[in-house]
Amino acid sequence: MAERWRDIGGPVGLFPTGERNAITDVPGVLVGHAQAASGEPTGVTVVVPPDIPVRAGVDTTNGVGELTAKLEIDEYGIIVTPVWLCGTHAVGTVYRGAVLAAGGSPEKTVIPVVGECDDSDMADSLTVTVEDVNAALANAGVEVAEGSVGSGTGMTCFDFAGGIGTASRLVEGYTVGVLLMCNFGDRERLTVGGLRFDPVPGDPPPEGSCIAVCATDAPLTAIQLRRLALRPLLGLARAGSYAGNGSGEIGIAFAATREQAFRTDKMSPLFAAAYEAAEESVYNCLVVAKAGTRRDGRPHEAFPKHLVKRDA
Amino acid sequence: MAERWRDIGGPVGLFPTGERNAITDVPGVLVGHAQAASGEPTGVTVVVPPDIPVRAGVDTTNGVGELTAKLEIDEYGIIVTPVWLCGTHAVGTVYRGAVLAAGGSPEKTVIPVVGECDDSDMADSLTVTVEDVNAALANAGVEVAEGSVGSGTGMTCFDFAGGIGTASRLVEGYTVGVLLMCNFGDRERLTVGGLRFDPVPGDPPPEGSCIAVCATDAPLTAIQLRRLALRPLLGLARAGSYAGNGSGEIGIAFAATREQAFRTDKMSPLFAAAYEAAEESVYNCLVVAKAGTRRDGRPHEAFPKHLVKRDA
Amino acid sequence: MAERWRDIGGPVGLFPTGERNAITDVPGVLVGHAQAASGEPTGVTVVVPPDIPVRAGVDTTNGVGELTAKLEIDEYGIIVTPVWLCGTHAVGTVYRGAVLAAGGSPEKTVIPVVGECDDSDMADSLTVTVEDVNAALANAGVEVAEGSVGSGTGMTCFDFAGGIGTASRLVEGYTVGVLLMCNFGDRERLTVGGLRFDPVPGDPPPEGSCIAVCATDAPLTAIQLRRLALRPLLGLARAGSYAGNGSGEIGIAFAATREQAFRTDKMSPLFAAAYEAAEESVYNCLVVAKAGTRRDGRPHEAFPKHLVKRDA
Amino acid sequence: MAERWRDIGGPVGLFPTGERNAITDVPGVLVGHAQAASGEPTGVTVVVPPDIPVRAGVDTTNGVGELTAKLEIDEYGIIVTPVWLCGTHAVGTVYRGAVLAAGGSPEKTVIPVVGECDDSDMADSLTVTVEDVNAALANAGVEVAEGSVGSGTGMTCFDFAGGIGTASRLVEGYTVGVLLMCNFGDRERLTVGGLRFDPVPGDPPPEGSCIAVCATDAPLTAIQLRRLALRPLLGLARAGSYAGNGSGEIGIAFAATREQAFRTDKMSPLFAAAYEAAEESVYNCLVVAKAGTRRDGRPHEAFPKHLVKRDA
Repeated sequence: MAERWRDIGGPVGLFPTGERNAITDVPGVLVGHAQAASGEPTGVTVVVPPDIPVRAGVDTTNGVGELTAKLEIDEYGIIVTPVWLCGTHAVGTVYRGAVLAAGGSPEKTVIPVVGECDDSDMADSLTVTVEDVNAALANAGVEVAEGSVGSGTGMTCFDFAGGIGTASRLVEGYTVGVLLMCNFGDRERLTVGGLRFDPVPGDPPPEGSCIAVCATDAPLTAIQLRRLALRPLLGLARAGSYAGNGSGEIGIAFAATREQAFRTDKMSPLFAAAYEAAEESVYNCLVVAKAGTRRDGRPHEAFPKHLVKRDA
Repeated sequence: MAERWRDIGGPVGLFPTGERNAITDVPGVLVGHAQAASGEPTGVTVVVPPDIPVRAGVDTTNGVGELTAKLEIDEYGIIVTPVWLCGTHAVGTVYRGAVLAAGGSPEKTVIPVVGECDDSDMADSLTVTVEDVNAALANAGVEVAEGSVGSGTGMTCFDFAGGIGTASRLVEGYTVGVLLMCNFGDRERLTVGGLRFDPVPGDPPPEGSCIAVCATDAPLTAIQLRRLALRPLLGLARAGSYAGNGSGEIGIAFAATREQAFRTDKMSPLFAAAYEAAEESVYNCLVVAKAGTRRDGRPHEAFPKHLVKRDA
Repeated sequence: MAERWRDIGGPVGLFPTGERNAITDVPGVLVGHAQAASGEPTGVTVVVPPDIPVRAGVDTTNGVGELTAKLEIDEYGIIVTPVWLCGTHAVGTVYRGAVLAAGGSPEKTVIPVVGECDDSDMADSLTVTVEDVNAALANAGVEVAEGSVGSGTGMTCFDFAGGIGTASRLVEGYTVGVLLMCNFGDRERLTVGGLRFDPVPGDPPPEGSCIAVCATDAPLTAIQLRRLALRPLLGLARAGSYAGNGSGEIGIAFAATREQAFRTDKMSPLFAAAYEAAEESVYNCLVVAKAGTRRDGRPHEAFPKHLVKRDA
Repeated sequence: MAERWRDIGGPVGLFPTGERNAITDVPGVLVGHAQAASGEPTGVTVVVPPDIPVRAGVDTTNGVGELTAKLEIDEYGIIVTPVWLCGTHAVGTVYRGAVLAAGGSPEKTVIPVVGECDDSDMADSLTVTVEDVNAALANAGVEVAEGSVGSGTGMTCFDFAGGIGTASRLVEGYTVGVLLMCNFGDRERLTVGGLRFDPVPGDPPPEGSCIAVCATDAPLTAIQLRRLALRPLLGLARAGSYAGNGSGEIGIAFAATREQAFRTDKMSPLFAAAYEAAEESVYNCLVVAKAGTRRDGRPHEAFPKHLVKRDA
């Protein structure tokens, strides 16, 4: 696996990580990526719960973006498909592909969960196909590639190359895992690793967004999951996001268990775990994502990880 | 135009109607329908505001359904495409078609507004194509066909053939128009026109839903539009809906003007107008929709309009 | 007990009622009323669950009003006090009284549930005292007086004397009970019992509101209770409310059991029960409430129950 | 004025501050404090807009707490009283006092804005009186005392003495000011100024909360204010809060102008300003708040400001 944040910058937060420090440390959770076969730097990522349907909750700090099925999750507290991620203009195709992948038919009506961020300065996400959707699911496994992969291929984070990041925490006998599609942040507000940056000169890039997926094997109710879904978004704020006007920051959490019995007054450690795992996921994304070139020719710079001061 | 509710049952509510008693009485609003070219009894309907983007708001009484762009509307208070309606499994295709119809490209990112109801007992909405989407828009005009047309072709209302219904009201110098995609209701709770019905024997049909679109030329703010969006849903309740568990009842309202200056303490008449126009839209839908046959061979009965007692 | 709606107008809806046709048919639920000792036509009503804390949920169709503890109920899904009802300016005093009644102290922090409607055209609710709060609780029992009692003493419904109404339904082996504090409605939109009314001439009264309390012994989760809480508000719409601009229509539902295991796909009958019980509660309130005189000398007319046509 | 954060730790964020680096830099905004005359270490704080009613919005990251009038603000987008802050059990009394202070009477119905945090480990907030409410308002001015004053007298922040903190930013020709009642945070997650702390041994204190008040002279709409209201809560996350289970984190923002015309796509700098002003407000609170003794005899330690490393 590529060098990650804590290899160079040290730990984030206080809790121990799971074995892979990834959302797939939650038993049964899988992640798959596929870059678009069109060759555009865009693609599809899928986070697969161990069981479907499964309890889930959604919340936002800035709903400027799309996460389909949100209204239904609010009422039923469940998701009936995996969580699919893609570029903004791929939502229609991924929605259709997700229905088909779930065996949708007149006998089985499905509203799938599809979240997006806007990668249009790098790619044309309209080129994503149902075959790309299927490829992402076929690739699902426990090893989670980060950075410029899958739906994260063309994403931008703190004006550096962004994309996918993941991390996990072990707390009170449970695992909390987070996976982010990172496409947010102003460079000058990133202060981790003892670094300070100047803003990028010139016009600002298209404003970003972030979809935060959180999984846990703690037996939470749907309301508890909705609450958990918000905490990775607070982790983004810890990393330097103020949820800029166009930065849709949307969280979804699901339970990787059918059990449902958790004392509300014991939730704080789970919340803290999601918060710190999200912060580390941002840094993992930055460390791994690769430089590229925008559609207008401007560089898509990589984060200067060689400058990071350990434990700063 | 076909015989409508007030031709046989008399007026609903207290306010006068617009010229067509349709959402297109709001100046500049157009409606287009297309049945699926596949021949399935499903299709696409589009409600086109006079101007895009335009201020809008969304609310639900039961969010068991999909209306894309809802999260973004909550933050920005605008819609950037027309309002598209279709069957549940057509959402992906209509979403893609709506992006294309709006000129979506990497230079212009669009999150379109697509609402659905489940017509799967009548049709396979996966067969809807981008061409059907384009056809609906090409058909847009001020005359609004009702009943079994466009996205309403295979819908069911109070266990009778359902689909599209519309009505309008003139109030305080403004027009309030409503268009419903009606796919909700238990037959035994429909009590209009002096009628009483027994429940349909046998298993209940797949649970319904309703998307309610409201337009007005009153210069409302986004919050005022969100509030207005709820009132047609209260009109459904007046007609006999208790928002059954699977009946997603979702409202969207948009302003057909760029002006934005309306006194909140003057809103009650607009609310009442949307409420009574929605009630009448339900009855218009019932009167016009045509009998058919479900996929399992059961009849899709027409509402027995010949039994209606006037002003009962 | 006084003559109630179904004695003169016949049944409302389809389900059988509980023994008392009151919220207290839900086992263990009690209701207490106290008119203000000041002599003002205002007061306090309390709905007492059999157990505290208990799961609960809140929703609104028009949040123009106050229901304290709403934010906490959204997060925790429980209430830690009974549900208290009063006039708008009594909220502070009732809040304090409710904390004291719950044994609030530095060792036991309590956020009580207090809902209000505006009875200021009849009374000065600032005159309510902590003693009135205690009196309401001391009066709690299973017999529920309706109309111009307790917090309903000075309320107005469809421009007639309003106040408290209650009803219950038996469904699927469970009881669903509703109690309303009715202070809403335009007279000309009330069409029950074969009646039609003209609007009241002159300036409109201060706009109304309604707090709807729903209880059930069905073992619902907190999300299910939030959904249930909305259905009595749809019952108000059935009775003729369009949730006018200033008419805060706020629902709260609580579970009268510690069990928590109910299939979401079985909820429709409970929803329908809450909807029709609320509609009947409105009519019960109207039939029982007594004529009076407003602070400005205008009459507070009683509903003309002698004109009601049975089963119309 | 006492030594504040930037005197010892350096600037927070990127924007310049207003003259006082306080919410009262927003023209016309005043703040008043009163400690309870009972002598208990609790009290009342009031933030007074220049004009009443004024547009406002509310949002939460964890609604475990009370902010009255929230439901009405969601519908009307205005507040009709100043924003009052107090301990949890004082809400009833402060509500009543706020109604009286606003001239509430049967001719003028008022739902005041009262927010609370739980200071019960330090004080009995039931001892607060209407006279204390009046005293806070009488003390209102442009100089804002911080730390252990007014409603913040007995509050706890990161397990140190907490209470009131304020800051402001100048951005795009406007002023954004924040005032916090700080009662949140786990000590071991506070990492500012180059400091690291161990958790406090023994049982955790009663879980905290934070009410964040934000004011601006930018001519925002009510939806824009609701969005702004969330950003100080993201500033708390930046400072180390994960919105622990019992930590009600509730934001309210109001406009200090009657104008209402602001381009949504220009909001990011205002959001960033509120975010960084809130972070600095937390540190200002910590630096100023004074050591004390809890009701159970445990010390209420002051933040060790002498250990702070500048610009760390």
